[in-house]
Amino acid sequence: MKGFVFHGPGQASWQDLPDPGIKEPTDAIVKVGVVTICGTDLHILKGDVPEVRPGTVLGHEAVGEIVEIGGDVRTVRPGDRVLMSCITSCGRCRFCRDGSYGQCRGGGGWILGHLIDGTQAEYVRVPCADLSVHPLPAALADEDAVLLADIFPTAYEVGVLNGRVRPGDTVAVVGAGPVGLAAIATARLFSPERIIAVDLAPARLEAAHRLGADAIADAREAPGQLVDDLTDGLGADVVIEAVGVPESFELCTRMVRPGGHVANVGVHGRPATLHLEDLWSKNVTITTGLVDTYSTPTLLRMAAGGRLPTRQLVTHTFPLEHMEEAYDVFAQAADTGALKVVLGGERHEVAVPEA
Amino acid sequence: MKGFVFHGPGQASWQDLPDPGIKEPTDAIVKVGVVTICGTDLHILKGDVPEVRPGTVLGHEAVGEIVEIGGDVRTVRPGDRVLMSCITSCGRCRFCRDGSYGQCRGGGGWILGHLIDGTQAEYVRVPCADLSVHPLPAALADEDAVLLADIFPTAYEVGVLNGRVRPGDTVAVVGAGPVGLAAIATARLFSPERIIAVDLAPARLEAAHRLGADAIADAREAPGQLVDDLTDGLGADVVIEAVGVPESFELCTRMVRPGGHVANVGVHGRPATLHLEDLWSKNVTITTGLVDTYSTPTLLRMAAGGRLPTRQLVTHTFPLEHMEEAYDVFAQAADTGALKVVLGGERHEVAVPEA
Repeated sequence: MKGFVFHGPGQASWQDLPDPGIKEPTDAIVKVGVVTICGTDLHILKGDVPEVRPGTVLGHEAVGEIVEIGGDVRTVRPGDRVLMSCITSCGRCRFCRDGSYGQCRGGGGWILGHLIDGTQAEYVRVPCADLSVHPLPAALADEDAVLLADIFPTAYEVGVLNGRVRPGDTVAVVGAGPVGLAAIATARLFSPERIIAVDLAPARLEAAHRLGADAIADAREAPGQLVDDLTDGLGADVVIEAVGVPESFELCTRMVRPGGHVANVGVHGRPATLHLEDLWSKNVTITTGLVDTYSTPTLLRMAAGGRLPTRQLVTHTFPLEHMEEAYDVFAQAADTGALKVVLGGERHEVAVPEA
Repeated sequence: MKGFVFHGPGQASWQDLPDPGIKEPTDAIVKVGVVTICGTDLHILKGDVPEVRPGTVLGHEAVGEIVEIGGDVRTVRPGDRVLMSCITSCGRCRFCRDGSYGQCRGGGGWILGHLIDGTQAEYVRVPCADLSVHPLPAALADEDAVLLADIFPTAYEVGVLNGRVRPGDTVAVVGAGPVGLAAIATARLFSPERIIAVDLAPARLEAAHRLGADAIADAREAPGQLVDDLTDGLGADVVIEAVGVPESFELCTRMVRPGGHVANVGVHGRPATLHLEDLWSKNVTITTGLVDTYSTPTLLRMAAGGRLPTRQLVTHTFPLEHMEEAYDVFAQAADTGALKVVLGGERHEVAVPEA
């Protein structure tokens, strides 16, 4: 088969590989239909995630068809169309029993394209298949479903639910990349009074507006002032951090109201400064989290019912074998306008949307 | 009357003052019975709380007798014995309606001994008396009740409840001063598996042990290792910060388990480093808070029933007019072994406990 292999910082290639096979009786082998690229994959390529060993196939988001299962797999069978989730779960450890699948201590957690070969390939071995793939509703197209492998549950669980968005809230979302946009879309499910999107890129702010942001702010132009103006100087009830740099996290802690919530979704590589001299008395709650994907079955039902704007986030489609080109387009998002790039499936036969 | 007046950094004195009078129809005048000194008062004396103006009477914790009320006061009358809470609440603003009295925008919040004259005096004017003093159960002595003006509700609400201590939890309390000790005592109400106390002072660690800590650790001797040893390397479910310096906060974020809670109670004057490069994926919840005192009525009932070890925290008693000496003893806690020093009442006639 072919797959996209990390060879060390700055080096990766779409290349021949041996087909994966069943190693454990709980494994399944999945033939990839469509797959996408995550911002985290770019971090890995840069060398920011040192536990990823050279030789690893990248990717942790895909849809495909089960082609083989181990002897202990009970919930899926060959021929089933499934979502491969970014989170693998053993279902048996203390954390899985608590629904905290992302923290799985039984061999799961975020392992695909991280600690074992991932989904940017023609075939994938998925461990713990019973709990780690999700059978897909017939009404849901692969290109929509693939956005539920990571970005929608991440934005919903780690941003919206951890941030406890409630009706009538003012919600600020800092970072309008794919995860921030999915946070805007899923925050709307709770009928907030307003959503304020903050980013540097005009194209992303426009996308935020299309997906339901009521106000948009350039991150360089005092976004905190806009929040203050809209909230009588109080600050936002919920602030969702979807960038992953210290400056954006610190902005979030300045924009939150007394008693409010800051939900960190961004993947950070450096420490931030926490201004406890201001925050100690403000009754602020700050949460962090790797997605658990406990919401994935619910989100799949909602997406199948047309209640999530998944397709609006797909800006580019490619044949699977154009992986290297797709990485380039995604990495140059500031120029290409890329949000999510989707590879495989049938849509690339038609037309690649304009950036 | 006499009162203890702040005259600027490093300067304060017990001196003659005009008696306070009713200014607003919601005011009450209270004759002080017993009063105590808070670590925050020491910060004010050092000049760390610049909004306290020279000329302000310090103190925000006392018990006394109502001697006069304004025309709009309905819930107390002259002769009533009451607790003066550290938090004043208007009862009408957005935050008070939500039980967030500490964030009151109607003239309350922490104002006594901060923005207006406080309780370290013979008489105190208490604004918004209906919601800001608490009638005392007859069974509860002044010397016990006064610990519920601040430290017990602070430790309980901001530490134990914000930290969501649950049965079976491992709870680490960093800082075994009065508030940390009250956190240990109130964490026990939730039947945790174990409480680990961390401090620098052997005397405070001994007090922690007496109040219910199952294990104690010197802050200089790898307390995180003790937590790891006791939790199979996982970390504590709940970590309560009761010191207020960056180093102790950062220690707390290293000791918490994935999915755990860090409840900051400490009053901070400087920013801390938040290691998001480690924490982003750990599903950690960090809370801050000024006490709201919504729990004070409940804690008063519990204290009256003998269910809170209030008296164990009182190490020294003094006549009211020995305020300056009491400050010295409290400020030199490392040498005197002082936890809470209580002034006024009858007990100073007996014996000052040994340090």
